[in-house]
Amino acid sequence: MDDRLKKQLDFILEADKEKEIIRQTYLSDGSRKETDAEHAWHMALMVMFLNEYANEEVDKYKSICMALVHDIIEIYAGDTYAYDEKGNETKAEREQEACKKLCALLPEDQGEILKSLWEEFEAMETPEAKFVNTLDKVQPLLLNDASGGKSWAEHGIKIDQVLNRNKKTHEGSEKLWSVAKNIIEDNKTKGNLK
Amino acid sequence: MDDRLKKQLDFILEADKEKEIIRQTYLSDGSRKETDAEHAWHMALMVMFLNEYANEEVDKYKSICMALVHDIIEIYAGDTYAYDEKGNETKAEREQEACKKLCALLPEDQGEILKSLWEEFEAMETPEAKFVNTLDKVQPLLLNDASGGKSWAEHGIKIDQVLNRNKKTHEGSEKLWSVAKNIIEDNKTKGNLK
Repeated sequence: MDDRLKKQLDFILEADKEKEIIRQTYLSDGSRKETDAEHAWHMALMVMFLNEYANEEVDKYKSICMALVHDIIEIYAGDTYAYDEKGNETKAEREQEACKKLCALLPEDQGEILKSLWEEFEAMETPEAKFVNTLDKVQPLLLNDASGGKSWAEHGIKIDQVLNRNKKTHEGSEKLWSVAKNIIEDNKTKGNLK
Repeated sequence: MDDRLKKQLDFILEADKEKEIIRQTYLSDGSRKETDAEHAWHMALMVMFLNEYANEEVDKYKSICMALVHDIIEIYAGDTYAYDEKGNETKAEREQEACKKLCALLPEDQGEILKSLWEEFEAMETPEAKFVNTLDKVQPLLLNDASGGKSWAEHGIKIDQVLNRNKKTHEGSEKLWSVAKNIIEDNKTKGNLK
């Protein structure tokens, strides 16, 4: 097997570890927490069926690729829970290191593509990055809503924390932000958010 | 919320159930079996990084969408193990019904897109369908190889069954079929395949 293909297959196999990173969000029926790979798949599906709601027109292929890999560095950096203040202090540095390590597995050109997709997502400046970041916030809101706020209750999350985390959600899609706002308000009324 | 968006969000939430369909393939470390959603994510990643090996040039966005939804009808039809002869007798009918039910959740235009993607994948005639079908065979081979053939051993799978299941794998990518053949041969030598 040539070196290029070997590197690509090694990367694909290493990526399998994303299925072992457990997020704090429960599946809609509350039966268990979802994995990073499942979350990325769900977001990619949202790009497919909800891209018409992006504030600015997005490159769909680029957006879907960004959704697929936006958390892949967590294979080495671990998942940092949105409301874990201490974890978030060291998050950026850990993730930069992880990105370098992961991209080095791939042939150089593809390592560059992966790095640039991840950095673009993190910088949240392009239409695609804004839209995919919005989906990254709306997807767990949909699941938290469906599971009766199970994850919020487990961590004692307050409405201000959720609003603060979502302060840029409108940047990718005003329409989906209006859905998100309704979910947050509704869960306040139901007592799922303090 | 308007009717179109409501339907789309209901579909996205229903799709969450794909995370509860368990396949027979173990993760590379053998720790547990993967879910349908994880398998679809892994295949979409393979489209991203391995599309250069498709026998014919493929539309990457279409291929990635096909990978994302190729098993989504299993939400209603269940996963039929590749080597379950009895289950495979009724598979086509169960899956057709499931597809109809699932597509009806979406706005009509998007239901049509989903139906046509799934039917195209199943018919295995276009370059995209052939390539994604190849990935659908190669992905579990990579995992079975990494986990020491755990799933094959569990079900007493013979090499002829694997070769028979892979008789069209070359149609999507001769290059990846050569990888697959090596994996099969190697696992025969190791005694992981009878």
